[in-house]
Amino acid sequence: MPKAAVLMGSKSDISVVKPAVAVLKSMGVEVEVRVISAHRTPEEAHDFASSAKENGIEVIICAAGKAAHLGGVVAAYTTLPVIGLPVKTDMMGGLDSLLSIVQMPSGIPVATVGVNGGENAGLLAAQILGIKYPAVAAELAEYKLKMREKINADDCALQRELNQLI
Amino acid sequence: MPKAAVLMGSKSDISVVKPAVAVLKSMGVEVEVRVISAHRTPEEAHDFASSAKENGIEVIICAAGKAAHLGGVVAAYTTLPVIGLPVKTDMMGGLDSLLSIVQMPSGIPVATVGVNGGENAGLLAAQILGIKYPAVAAELAEYKLKMREKINADDCALQRELNQLI
Amino acid sequence: MPKAAVLMGSKSDISVVKPAVAVLKSMGVEVEVRVISAHRTPEEAHDFASSAKENGIEVIICAAGKAAHLGGVVAAYTTLPVIGLPVKTDMMGGLDSLLSIVQMPSGIPVATVGVNGGENAGLLAAQILGIKYPAVAAELAEYKLKMREKINADDCALQRELNQLI
Amino acid sequence: MPKAAVLMGSKSDISVVKPAVAVLKSMGVEVEVRVISAHRTPEEAHDFASSAKENGIEVIICAAGKAAHLGGVVAAYTTLPVIGLPVKTDMMGGLDSLLSIVQMPSGIPVATVGVNGGENAGLLAAQILGIKYPAVAAELAEYKLKMREKINADDCALQRELNQLI
Amino acid sequence: MPKAAVLMGSKSDISVVKPAVAVLKSMGVEVEVRVISAHRTPEEAHDFASSAKENGIEVIICAAGKAAHLGGVVAAYTTLPVIGLPVKTDMMGGLDSLLSIVQMPSGIPVATVGVNGGENAGLLAAQILGIKYPAVAAELAEYKLKMREKINADDCALQRELNQLI
Amino acid sequence: MPKAAVLMGSKSDISVVKPAVAVLKSMGVEVEVRVISAHRTPEEAHDFASSAKENGIEVIICAAGKAAHLGGVVAAYTTLPVIGLPVKTDMMGGLDSLLSIVQMPSGIPVATVGVNGGENAGLLAAQILGIKYPAVAAELAEYKLKMREKINADDCALQRELNQLI
Amino acid sequence: MPKAAVLMGSKSDISVVKPAVAVLKSMGVEVEVRVISAHRTPEEAHDFASSAKENGIEVIICAAGKAAHLGGVVAAYTTLPVIGLPVKTDMMGGLDSLLSIVQMPSGIPVATVGVNGGENAGLLAAQILGIKYPAVAAELAEYKLKMREKINADDCALQRELNQLI
Amino acid sequence: MPKAAVLMGSKSDISVVKPAVAVLKSMGVEVEVRVISAHRTPEEAHDFASSAKENGIEVIICAAGKAAHLGGVVAAYTTLPVIGLPVKTDMMGGLDSLLSIVQMPSGIPVATVGVNGGENAGLLAAQILGIKYPAVAAELAEYKLKMREKINADDCALQRELNQLI
Repeated sequence: MPKAAVLMGSKSDISVVKPAVAVLKSMGVEVEVRVISAHRTPEEAHDFASSAKENGIEVIICAAGKAAHLGGVVAAYTTLPVIGLPVKTDMMGGLDSLLSIVQMPSGIPVATVGVNGGENAGLLAAQILGIKYPAVAAELAEYKLKMREKINADDCALQRELNQLI
Repeated sequence: MPKAAVLMGSKSDISVVKPAVAVLKSMGVEVEVRVISAHRTPEEAHDFASSAKENGIEVIICAAGKAAHLGGVVAAYTTLPVIGLPVKTDMMGGLDSLLSIVQMPSGIPVATVGVNGGENAGLLAAQILGIKYPAVAAELAEYKLKMREKINADDCALQRELNQLI
Repeated sequence: MPKAAVLMGSKSDISVVKPAVAVLKSMGVEVEVRVISAHRTPEEAHDFASSAKENGIEVIICAAGKAAHLGGVVAAYTTLPVIGLPVKTDMMGGLDSLLSIVQMPSGIPVATVGVNGGENAGLLAAQILGIKYPAVAAELAEYKLKMREKINADDCALQRELNQLI
Repeated sequence: MPKAAVLMGSKSDISVVKPAVAVLKSMGVEVEVRVISAHRTPEEAHDFASSAKENGIEVIICAAGKAAHLGGVVAAYTTLPVIGLPVKTDMMGGLDSLLSIVQMPSGIPVATVGVNGGENAGLLAAQILGIKYPAVAAELAEYKLKMREKINADDCALQRELNQLI
Repeated sequence: MPKAAVLMGSKSDISVVKPAVAVLKSMGVEVEVRVISAHRTPEEAHDFASSAKENGIEVIICAAGKAAHLGGVVAAYTTLPVIGLPVKTDMMGGLDSLLSIVQMPSGIPVATVGVNGGENAGLLAAQILGIKYPAVAAELAEYKLKMREKINADDCALQRELNQLI
Repeated sequence: MPKAAVLMGSKSDISVVKPAVAVLKSMGVEVEVRVISAHRTPEEAHDFASSAKENGIEVIICAAGKAAHLGGVVAAYTTLPVIGLPVKTDMMGGLDSLLSIVQMPSGIPVATVGVNGGENAGLLAAQILGIKYPAVAAELAEYKLKMREKINADDCALQRELNQLI
Repeated sequence: MPKAAVLMGSKSDISVVKPAVAVLKSMGVEVEVRVISAHRTPEEAHDFASSAKENGIEVIICAAGKAAHLGGVVAAYTTLPVIGLPVKTDMMGGLDSLLSIVQMPSGIPVATVGVNGGENAGLLAAQILGIKYPAVAAELAEYKLKMREKINADDCALQRELNQLI
Repeated sequence: MPKAAVLMGSKSDISVVKPAVAVLKSMGVEVEVRVISAHRTPEEAHDFASSAKENGIEVIICAAGKAAHLGGVVAAYTTLPVIGLPVKTDMMGGLDSLLSIVQMPSGIPVATVGVNGGENAGLLAAQILGIKYPAVAAELAEYKLKMREKINADDCALQRELNQLI
């Protein structure tokens, strides 16, 4: 069974992280969720990252805000793909989180998604697992189809409601 | 054999893209390199993305600058993981490219690396392939080791040279 | 009869789009309003844009937020003028939307208005149609006149109220 | 014969403006080029804008940098479509020029293209004229085709050169 | 009697403008308050600015937001000192207003104060008038003294309240 | 007994400053809290800074917002370490405060912490004092331990609550 | 005779300051030029600002870069109008200098011009002096006229050269 | 003897780091200089930081660029004061480095100096050591005096050279 980990730097990031966990579980991926801080529990970050691969984890999502080092710290200790999920802050809407995650030095990439992009972090993890697990890839194809149908339904509804709306 | 594609929006992006191709080839990954523009050859982008999976491609790197839509356009037509590689511009050092790539709407993630981060794009592609291909994972472990040795050698050299340098 | 299309990437953009539709209708322009997403319904975007001209549309407004590719994707498939309407986001007040729309590569312009500038998008569409349709140009002249009168009335009112206000 | 005007705030903007003029002329559009400053020759800006329509001009490109008011000042005096072309500056690559042009108040739109986007300003003017003049629309279709062929040729060339390049 | 003018681009800017008017009146300066828009009533802006000096005005405050051209347009038509007062917007807290006002081209300065800095705009106008009118200069000295006393009082109060506060 | 000073430019900054005072007091540091403005009470700033060392103060925290000069002004008059605490503003979440504090010219450093980082300002002051006062260093070690335990407790709690939460 | 002071934080700012001095001298204003640093020579800044008025100075230009406090420090000690001239830096083209100067707290305005806007700083000082000294006002009117003629000459020249240029 | 450590994430940061080392050595501080990367040699970073205090180090300077995690990673493993020195990058002049260093989460401060502020990093380290070592404090007082004399000499020289210069 495919397995992902979802880490957050603080328990208060849970609402940003939830959609990532939800989408992964809905696609049959086992998810380990942890509160680990790059700065406040660095030993735990080290232990988790160093042993992630042998614990069966294949992709890791790291959510963090401000000087968001969690993704980089985890990536330093593993060769598994690490997804960075920047959390919105008061500083230009999270530009600090985004730059701290995406601008990694050469040699240690972190796959960054948009600010507060929990669902996209989950989907990206699923896409990565999908190259190995056909069942996950099938779920993604299904998801894409439903998304398209949803927009098309919105489009149709809009035509009907247009007179009231505008 | 693992297979990746590397797309660039303009032939002038070749220098940014080169390190991605080089690192992938050095790890035994077959690489298809293409010049495809989201805006100038949208049909080709559509055709490439729609058929990428059946053509054996498992991960796609898209390099583009300014209003950098290539990654998003490709991601719209496939469920393969798509890596966005922002190209540096005159506009705040490429912040336009970065935001145009990373801030994708919910449902269509693009795994973004840093501006001009060609090598990291290649390494991330390798990490993704590595969850399926143990040989690639082994190459990554080797790469990580050498990187550490390089820094350690720099550290030693610095100690020796310190008197001259400072 | 002059005809414009107003596209939005998500039904939730309706409030930003409304003033554009309203001003166009008030000036006698037929308006087709659609929910089409560059990423979630790319085929629909392709179909719409490719056939817009033969369907009698002469100018297209595309509202989108974040990595706002809708205008660019539509512009890739048509030579009609495309107006990009950036939707406000949490990221620096919509700077991500603005840069993703305005910084188009050479060859594919998108005529960009200010963030959440729905009314201006509509007026710009009317100005474009106005070079062909004198009736629309006449409406614009009338609109400009009323706008001036409104400010002048505000100016007069302020003089009267000044003692209470300040 | 279709007619456009291209204004620049300073003679030093000529290199940014040239591609706009070139592309318009190549498509059979008559172009009036002027040096008019919103701040240094405001009377001339007023005179030009107020009489542009009766002088047969149908679309106006205004190139300016820094606190780039030229587009707004011209738009204040006409209902013709006005295209704003931000000139690159030292301040964040021209973000000052861009924001000064695009963030117009409700009622007075300026159709903004990317920083230093001279060619796109010209193409946008052509697209606007194209809704009235079929010959210009035909030129645009031809232009789009050649652009596509150019990218495809680059793509083919890259395949051949790949071994040397990378 | 010293005389200043305070212009705002829209009546909705009144709350930002009020402190400027209040501080000027409290220092014995006659104030003319007007709603004049650079874009919606350009003729009025022209008329006001061209005749300001002969109407006895000696300094002009211009409050505006977004692509805030009012200060520049007024400064184009007069050699009186013009103070630009940027109004806060959703775009990065008013950075668009600030840059549109302060980054004037060589030859036409606008004396810019901070975003929503109404009181400072008024004080700056008073300082300018103060070099000619000793009575205004005396008011400014008094104002500075009271400001100092206010901070000192706050400092003392804090010492007393400290135990409750912290 | 170790002694720190905490200055704020305005009494309204008290909520940002509180955590700094609290953490210092909890670690046995004597704290002098003052309202002193670089601009409104410059003489007081001068007097305080010039005599701080002889008054037994060993580290100074300066909280200020916008054009936040307090830290720089104090640092100009002392060789004690000065910690700058930027206060959040409407301008890009306090980027103005941050840059005004951190970008000091060569020769006069101000040790800057994050925007509204009151607790970190206090901890940094404690770390500085800790190199001289072993008791403070011991408090810091204890603090670090508790912080780690807190995150670990959150991590455990999350595991238990996970089914309800997600 | 009207008298202005021009201060710079570092002798290396001389090239930015020169146009300010030149324009003032050309208009018959006596200019005192000083190197005074808010941080490195705070006593000198205090002494200069406190006695500026009694020394016959009527307006003060302060050029500084990065955390540019010079204008604010001088304004703290005088009620004369203080003009802030931000010097370009590597940080976003001088946005740090600009924000450190313009975002002054309520009570202490600094009249800010654009980054590296030396000539505009000089002109603004002249405009301020012009409300008291008719001779300076006359020089400004003459300057404005010549500026207009210069642009008109550029405009004419462009018409002639157009064929070669474009 | 007082002892400081200066770490850089890459040997290429040596030119930014040199002034920090130089100023510390000139003040009689022993300096250990190391190349240690938060991401490429995380074990070394851990080992260094965990044992820094027992190795006699009392303050640590960490220079890094882009997603600059070195300061944060070191601070996670020690209670010594850690000074973050952001290295200039192409991304908005180093705003990425600055935000990644300064915006640390509550509990783990990093004392940040300006971008490329090597000398200030060294001076700040000396100021911190100065509260314990009177000899270092004396050196700082001497340094401040010389700095003042230097500016005063520049000021005098400028008076002499003024006619040639301007």
